Amino acid sequence: MSSFRVGLLGHGTVGGAFATQLPQHADRIEKITGLRPELSGVLTRSQGSFDELLEGSDLIVELIGGIEPARDYLLRAMRSGRHVVTANKQLLSRHGEELWDVAREHEVQLRFEGAVAGVVPVIRVLQESLAGATIDRVHGIVNGTTNFILTEMARTGATFPEALADAQRLGYAEADPSEDVDGRDAAAKMAIIARLAFETPIHIDQVRYEGIEHIQPDDLEYARDLGLGLKLIGTAERVGERALSVRVYPAFLYPGHPLASINGPFNAVTVESEAITEITMSGPGAGGPQTASAVLGDVISAMIPPASTPPATERLEIVSDVVSAFYLHLEVADEPGVLAQLAQVLALQGVSVKSVVQKGLHDQARLVMVVHPVLESRFAAAMELIAGMDALRAPPRAIRVLEEQFE
Amino acid sequence: MSSFRVGLLGHGTVGGAFATQLPQHADRIEKITGLRPELSGVLTRSQGSFDELLEGSDLIVELIGGIEPARDYLLRAMRSGRHVVTANKQLLSRHGEELWDVAREHEVQLRFEGAVAGVVPVIRVLQESLAGATIDRVHGIVNGTTNFILTEMARTGATFPEALADAQRLGYAEADPSEDVDGRDAAAKMAIIARLAFETPIHIDQVRYEGIEHIQPDDLEYARDLGLGLKLIGTAERVGERALSVRVYPAFLYPGHPLASINGPFNAVTVESEAITEITMSGPGAGGPQTASAVLGDVISAMIPPASTPPATERLEIVSDVVSAFYLHLEVADEPGVLAQLAQVLALQGVSVKSVVQKGLHDQARLVMVVHPVLESRFAAAMELIAGMDALRAPPRAIRVLEEQFE
Repeated sequence: MSSFRVGLLGHGTVGGAFATQLPQHADRIEKITGLRPELSGVLTRSQGSFDELLEGSDLIVELIGGIEPARDYLLRAMRSGRHVVTANKQLLSRHGEELWDVAREHEVQLRFEGAVAGVVPVIRVLQESLAGATIDRVHGIVNGTTNFILTEMARTGATFPEALADAQRLGYAEADPSEDVDGRDAAAKMAIIARLAFETPIHIDQVRYEGIEHIQPDDLEYARDLGLGLKLIGTAERVGERALSVRVYPAFLYPGHPLASINGPFNAVTVESEAITEITMSGPGAGGPQTASAVLGDVISAMIPPASTPPATERLEIVSDVVSAFYLHLEVADEPGVLAQLAQVLALQGVSVKSVVQKGLHDQARLVMVVHPVLESRFAAAMELIAGMDALRAPPRAIRVLEEQFE
Repeated sequence: MSSFRVGLLGHGTVGGAFATQLPQHADRIEKITGLRPELSGVLTRSQGSFDELLEGSDLIVELIGGIEPARDYLLRAMRSGRHVVTANKQLLSRHGEELWDVAREHEVQLRFEGAVAGVVPVIRVLQESLAGATIDRVHGIVNGTTNFILTEMARTGATFPEALADAQRLGYAEADPSEDVDGRDAAAKMAIIARLAFETPIHIDQVRYEGIEHIQPDDLEYARDLGLGLKLIGTAERVGERALSVRVYPAFLYPGHPLASINGPFNAVTVESEAITEITMSGPGAGGPQTASAVLGDVISAMIPPASTPPATERLEIVSDVVSAFYLHLEVADEPGVLAQLAQVLALQGVSVKSVVQKGLHDQARLVMVVHPVLESRFAAAMELIAGMDALRAPPRAIRVLEEQFE
């Protein structure tokens, strides 16, 4: 019986789950691959020698997180001919090109399914199943914490701080949730997705992101009346022939959108391509056992065949001004002429109204509208003009609406 | 520049689309693999020599359909050391073990993503991403024709023949739709899925199937009042430790189920496993360009790394009697004691009612109910007793209800 020695870096939530799962599945893996996987050692930040671990391992699993020493360990492992598996999205969204270059140069595998959307197989599908498709756009719900919070707010009418506290209590948000709720975590994942979908190098700093801290319960309430649900959406899309947009933002979805029914801590990714229309994949986005299961799938794949991330062959421009539909919430004085003035301001910037709901409140009125897709810069200009109107009783609020692609 | 010669068997809808796509993507594929793919020749039922085609090809793509000569061609290609790609579900669901054995024996790849759910990457995900997971159950909507028909019936109130005629007019159903509407097509796909998910050999004849020809518009109407939508579902699931059930049947789904929002000609597959909860994948299930795109993905994968279907390591029993919830539609005389009599019959067989709607119609009553999950044989026994009741005014109608897994 031949064995296959797996060296593990890190023993936190995911690392611990991986160390538990590997022996549980050793019999099955041996049947599939002809090799019996065994843990050759575990290195943590406080103990163990990397050189010794490397010497005794056929493959290194990096679950230690952070940039250094994770980057150094992965580079050294690959340079000494070892396959590596990582779930480190921050590292890949900053130093991906360097790591992928070294993997190709040394003809070893660098696999990272666990870095994006947990066990949802978005990396493998982009790299392999869709290798022959020209991808136009990827939309994703790639952060389970924010999707859980938004689902709770919509379901119970809770405020953002209340729903966040619930998420923390249930283990869906960390003690310091800032990277999740401000969109940075999703931005790192979208950088990796965009790199694979569009074969162009993308650094996390090139991804525009917004979080969900400012979402109000009554936004969700009115939106529900309009048939809309709110999600934190990551988008990577081709803009014209030579440009690309990668961004993270809260957006309302119509019920028919493939991401509209993704609730709670789940993740989902929709890939659009003219040849195939669209593929959607969904599942649990995080959690130790789920991410460990994705890592284990990568280890098994590395035990069978070679795979590689091809060199970046495109140099697309990264653009920030794109077309989007918007939900707009306004509190205005209930006076003659206000609606006409508003309509004029919107029309001036080419913003066209799709639906509107008006409610009277004492001496003022609340207008909730959805506008047709428009260049974001033009919408922002309209918002500035509106914010300056005398009749306005509160700052205007706007949230993007994700249009259905195949109406 | 090295070339990679692809020999094509068949030039129908999928074959023609593949022959168009291959040169369109040759540049990208060359960038990814370092090899330039080219069509070495096309063999149809009426013209060409297989021996000549084989001689001049590095890989054979089989899109000729049917059992023979497809089986013979694939076996000969693999025995002469060629990788093969096929989308032939009928062949794989009947002769899969023979073909997979020969592929392993000759160390060539046999890829077949296009055989199940078109471009939805269910084969790759089962074989690779989930290689380390113990799968409990797979539910699938794996026939686009029937999903289109059911979606139309629900949306417009059309009868089955009307919706079928629409599907034929729009190209979603063939002139002879019998294999689609009676469930046989889905049964072949579920046999392949079950083989991969549970590593046990399954022949299509071991798959129980029902079609949708008997569905009535008013079933859909009442169900909508209960919040349910109808799908043709394929299920492969572990029953106890040593047994497996594989079946195809129309079933109602609650709105929260991951397959409930799959409409029109789309396909979707949900894989459940304790470690990962569930993954759902969806996308266009058929169509020439979509299936050709899946075939192309397989060709690209074969140009890079080896992959194989491991030998069947399990010999699970195939069972047919499983637990299911049901929707039940009864027309009865509006007389005292009828409901009590019904309730007694159901209780006798251990069938417990979850919800019921009663409507009076002249001198009779219509009862629509949903019952809790019960062994199908016991439910069938209850139905037989009910069918014999004097008060019954029309044959009782029953349809399964898919329960949500994670309530």
